[in-house]
Amino acid sequence: MAGSRLIIQQVVWDNNEFMNKLFKFFRQHTFSFVFSAVITLMITSATAQVRDTADSLMIRKLYDVVLSGEEMDANLRYLSRHIGARMTGSEQAKQAVDWARSTMSQYRPDSIYLQPVMVPHWVRGAKESAWFTTGGSSVKLDLSALGGSVGTGGTLTARVVEVRSWAELSSLSDEQVRGKVVFFNRAMDAREVETFKAYLAAADQRAQGAIAASKKGAIGALIRSLTLAKDDYPHTGAMSYDASVAKIPAAALSTNSADKLSEALKKDPKLQVSLKMNCIQLPDVLSYNVIAELRGAIHPEEFVTVGAHIDTWDVGEGASDDGTGVVQAMEVLRVFKATGLKPARTLRVILYMNEEAGAHGGVKYAEQAKARNEYHVAALESDAGGFSPRGFRIEASPEVVARFKEWALLLAPYKAGDVQSQQRGVDLVPMKGMAKALLSLDCDDSRLFYIHHSALDTYDKINPREVAMGAGAMAAMTALLCKYGL
Amino acid sequence: MAGSRLIIQQVVWDNNEFMNKLFKFFRQHTFSFVFSAVITLMITSATAQVRDTADSLMIRKLYDVVLSGEEMDANLRYLSRHIGARMTGSEQAKQAVDWARSTMSQYRPDSIYLQPVMVPHWVRGAKESAWFTTGGSSVKLDLSALGGSVGTGGTLTARVVEVRSWAELSSLSDEQVRGKVVFFNRAMDAREVETFKAYLAAADQRAQGAIAASKKGAIGALIRSLTLAKDDYPHTGAMSYDASVAKIPAAALSTNSADKLSEALKKDPKLQVSLKMNCIQLPDVLSYNVIAELRGAIHPEEFVTVGAHIDTWDVGEGASDDGTGVVQAMEVLRVFKATGLKPARTLRVILYMNEEAGAHGGVKYAEQAKARNEYHVAALESDAGGFSPRGFRIEASPEVVARFKEWALLLAPYKAGDVQSQQRGVDLVPMKGMAKALLSLDCDDSRLFYIHHSALDTYDKINPREVAMGAGAMAAMTALLCKYGL
Repeated sequence: MAGSRLIIQQVVWDNNEFMNKLFKFFRQHTFSFVFSAVITLMITSATAQVRDTADSLMIRKLYDVVLSGEEMDANLRYLSRHIGARMTGSEQAKQAVDWARSTMSQYRPDSIYLQPVMVPHWVRGAKESAWFTTGGSSVKLDLSALGGSVGTGGTLTARVVEVRSWAELSSLSDEQVRGKVVFFNRAMDAREVETFKAYLAAADQRAQGAIAASKKGAIGALIRSLTLAKDDYPHTGAMSYDASVAKIPAAALSTNSADKLSEALKKDPKLQVSLKMNCIQLPDVLSYNVIAELRGAIHPEEFVTVGAHIDTWDVGEGASDDGTGVVQAMEVLRVFKATGLKPARTLRVILYMNEEAGAHGGVKYAEQAKARNEYHVAALESDAGGFSPRGFRIEASPEVVARFKEWALLLAPYKAGDVQSQQRGVDLVPMKGMAKALLSLDCDDSRLFYIHHSALDTYDKINPREVAMGAGAMAAMTALLCKYGL
Repeated sequence: MAGSRLIIQQVVWDNNEFMNKLFKFFRQHTFSFVFSAVITLMITSATAQVRDTADSLMIRKLYDVVLSGEEMDANLRYLSRHIGARMTGSEQAKQAVDWARSTMSQYRPDSIYLQPVMVPHWVRGAKESAWFTTGGSSVKLDLSALGGSVGTGGTLTARVVEVRSWAELSSLSDEQVRGKVVFFNRAMDAREVETFKAYLAAADQRAQGAIAASKKGAIGALIRSLTLAKDDYPHTGAMSYDASVAKIPAAALSTNSADKLSEALKKDPKLQVSLKMNCIQLPDVLSYNVIAELRGAIHPEEFVTVGAHIDTWDVGEGASDDGTGVVQAMEVLRVFKATGLKPARTLRVILYMNEEAGAHGGVKYAEQAKARNEYHVAALESDAGGFSPRGFRIEASPEVVARFKEWALLLAPYKAGDVQSQQRGVDLVPMKGMAKALLSLDCDDSRLFYIHHSALDTYDKINPREVAMGAGAMAAMTALLCKYGL
């Protein structure tokens, strides 16, 4: 082809026609692509009978303000770097509540208030430590107590039994387990396309390991961290106890430490592990959900909520989980005001307290909404890590889901038009049956479990563009819900 | 609803039934979701008449090996951290060629060889510096010479004229520009959904700024860095000169420096900027494309190429651009061998030299392929940063594109089923008209321009899962092309 011969033959570095041509080529194609995309969008919109182009324009305006703004990223930086980890019951959680209230006040909502809720207060105490002893030498392990675990009361030393499945644990006699530490070493399956599914398929060890181990007489439980990385960072998270059996200390090992321990056990099955965990459950304390409202202009008695959880684990900075969700929800309020959008229905921004260890804030909110007999159109939560959004996960009747699929066409140009089932907002579960739709922002989950619940969850891991794209999608969806209801 | 009442009322931290129920709830839904996804896939496959389920199984096998492997990440770590930036013509570029050849040799291709190509050799020299002087005080600027720029030969000091568009530059008389430095300060538009489009819409300043400024008698050009970030990191890149006008020094300013200079110019339009740039163009040197082959079992005379560029800019580690592409292309060879996949057509893995400054390696490859009258089915390049893949960008006839859309159904379960026009592999442009299809891996572009061509392009910015998902998509697409041809 003449064109390509031309390109090939004229490549000279000193007089770089090649690069110039390349740019022109790309730019020309870009324009024709934009044109055909606009045409496609027009046809798609027409066939889907989307109400009118006013919606597209409204959404474009919201995205414009979000994408060109700098406030949200400054908020995330402050929340992550200055306040940092804000474990439920902690001084930092209080600071986060105060900061969120005063920051959202500057966006001039119609009202803003704190909703009281009693929450658990677990503290890690002095940093835990662990090591195993074999052949006279001792090897350090990296671990992190699971949230809610009892401490060891000094140093706990015992032999270890490693299992990779519930069946393997069941097959052991009580005698084989009694007085030992059960080491749950089933890894997340990297072959699973959805890493969230790989997480769920392994998280039962963390959630129920201590109960199952204790039932067989174990005196401690160690869990392989729920991450696809091979590194030295333990990942904490929620665990459970059962009133019928003794509460035993439970902690997560980094994947490198888990591999090290597993290797050593192969050579010396009688090696002993030692744990020092200083964590303790203190009495419940008073804390708050932070709620800001824009009163609906036409149906003030109908509510659309958009939220995230303000608490975090006590390691890292809680930047991804769920600092990103918090600043995105706040951003929805900011851009409604900045664009002069007056919602027909009442918009509530809710920052829930204690999602991580029992969803007390979510439960309290639902309880109060029920007591006041409020009508909730939909409840939306962002708690998927703040990465590139793909769309929404929705739990609603088939008719309502069909509505969302129609709206999704408006979000597709922003790469947020995917509609999946199974919403994942833990704080929304108590609203099931009360709101006509529960929605969670769905994000690319490649990076999430590398940092989740660990010291790696810090501001520098977050990309402001990805957070902004998510906030744009949330603002757009919220605007549609406020405009049309369900 | 009874179910949700139950959940709400039983939330107690000490005996955390709530978390247990939540896990069970998610897991149950996961299973039913997987089931319906399988059914959907079966129906979709049937209607699309995909040849047989053998393709699905082949692709699943390739992904399994990629997703559970650790070699590719180890390769990227070595290439980024141990070899590092590998500018065309540099000692590190040589090291990278040797390393790639010896590493791929271990994967036992049928042949592996170096294809000689003469390449330019530009060196930055001692780190450049810049400052402006106003009201007796001087302010430091962060800058990076553009690739191929001439140096300043000592310190260049001149007044500055700031422009944000070509029209603005045109409107100035030669007298207004002569003897000054033109400061191109048009920012990437953050409101653009596709950041790559925002990049192209601003990159003309970098590509052609020096020519346009020189035409009006300017003695230097400064370009605002092509990034959405506001930070202190300048982003370099390719630039052009025109034989008809003088070559003037051109450099990129960090966005913070650009803002600082622009602010200062508003207060003192007569301020002076000083530049010290020590870069120089040395004589061309001999370098190589690295090529490994798996000979086609049935049609050895038909070629499918999969590649990336082995050179980088001289800042950062070239981890994203294009270390990720290099290790992905190498991984395709590894997994073909590891899974025992014997291609019907010949697979060529090509690591191109000097994509960044003239695509000399790409041009040489096409030249040789033409001289040997080789038949190329398709050429694929990965050079989009190594982030989460979305699918492929394809340049081919409508009939061929339709074929790809059929294959895309097989990649959709891996979230790589998107088919877009306008392939973006610069090294493939010389193959236009020679291969029936040119394809580039298409990735999420949110993060790319935060690190692109800057000191921030380092291994820690890359997520191994994202790179693996991309390599899986490349292996799958390559396998289909080798199996069926076009």
